[in-house]
Amino acid sequence: MRLTIILVDGFTALDIVGGYEVLANVPAIQVEFAAKQRGPVWADTRRLALSAFKSFEEIETTDILYVPGGPGVGPALEDDEVIETIRRLAMTSTWTVGICNGVELLGKAGLLGGKEVTTNWAVREKVATYGATVKHVRYVRDGKLVTGAGVSASIDASLYLAGLIAGKEFAKTVQLGIEYYPDPPFGNGTPDDAPDFAKKMVRQFEAEGTERIRSLTAPV
Amino acid sequence: MRLTIILVDGFTALDIVGGYEVLANVPAIQVEFAAKQRGPVWADTRRLALSAFKSFEEIETTDILYVPGGPGVGPALEDDEVIETIRRLAMTSTWTVGICNGVELLGKAGLLGGKEVTTNWAVREKVATYGATVKHVRYVRDGKLVTGAGVSASIDASLYLAGLIAGKEFAKTVQLGIEYYPDPPFGNGTPDDAPDFAKKMVRQFEAEGTERIRSLTAPV
Repeated sequence: MRLTIILVDGFTALDIVGGYEVLANVPAIQVEFAAKQRGPVWADTRRLALSAFKSFEEIETTDILYVPGGPGVGPALEDDEVIETIRRLAMTSTWTVGICNGVELLGKAGLLGGKEVTTNWAVREKVATYGATVKHVRYVRDGKLVTGAGVSASIDASLYLAGLIAGKEFAKTVQLGIEYYPDPPFGNGTPDDAPDFAKKMVRQFEAEGTERIRSLTAPV
Repeated sequence: MRLTIILVDGFTALDIVGGYEVLANVPAIQVEFAAKQRGPVWADTRRLALSAFKSFEEIETTDILYVPGGPGVGPALEDDEVIETIRRLAMTSTWTVGICNGVELLGKAGLLGGKEVTTNWAVREKVATYGATVKHVRYVRDGKLVTGAGVSASIDASLYLAGLIAGKEFAKTVQLGIEYYPDPPFGNGTPDDAPDFAKKMVRQFEAEGTERIRSLTAPV
């Protein structure tokens, strides 16, 4: 199976690598990173770059389409080539995965009508405008669509998908391989349980995301 | 503060990106990726590359030295330039972070004598040979040394360090920003609680790591 991970300028790295690290460890899956052009694509911090080794136009079909999020989603929503690529590949995929606010890109591509999804807690209302029912959960499946909540939820969503593809017992070996027995030092909970000051700070930070990625420059 | 992340050929991506995503969100921290040479460095899967934008020789000091793991640690242990760079930068750092079997590199650099550390569950005995006391925990601090268990433990270890640097309340905002309220679909526990078949498979997979990264080729 081919797993195609969509890279857009200004992605959030853990949205991608959390899922990649799980799914790349399923032996049947071959990973490819695709972007508008081959070469390095810079993350939201402008301090990390992942290499795209295929351009969108080089890919005709895929088995697993993986759409991550980040501040780069704002500009990408207005980019016809990105949206058309997602729409086109989703028509061929066995599974379509959306993580964090990358789920908005699936919505813009017309893939969310009547679907149950999850997304980053801060963009639930936006995602609902695409006709989806947004669940307050960490991951959810609706048919061939698997969506994850924000950033680190890419790990849980992808372990769940690995279980669907390779079986629960194999997924448990992947969990051990990535030593995913989480123990957050400042407690667990849900985003809804987070302190109000934290919610306010993160909403502000995310609201400024597009402006921030435009103002920061990559080191090379 | 400068955070220098060491890239060696054949790294495990989540060892890096779990910690990067936490620490890059602390405003005082500027991230840099360093390798023997500038340019793309390929992960253990040979399907993901991160860009190094500094060479080791361009870096004289750092504030946070971050040493991740992966199958590439095997060859790196025999690479004097890598070990000498780690030893040299650790002399200048305020914090030194080791993740997964990257902790072995710290040992080879002579940084573990008498220290309490953690590491990937499968290499605890190896790490102990460097004079460290290996705790079966997800992260631990001993002086300026913060170590994390395998792969995804980079998130917990780095949240803990973010708390030490920027305060617990700020670290909680980072936790919300990366939506780290984990819910592993097949349960939580410790590596010691994992099923025996999974332990056997992962030990076998990890034992073949060096051979595997030598046999796989990058797509470009």
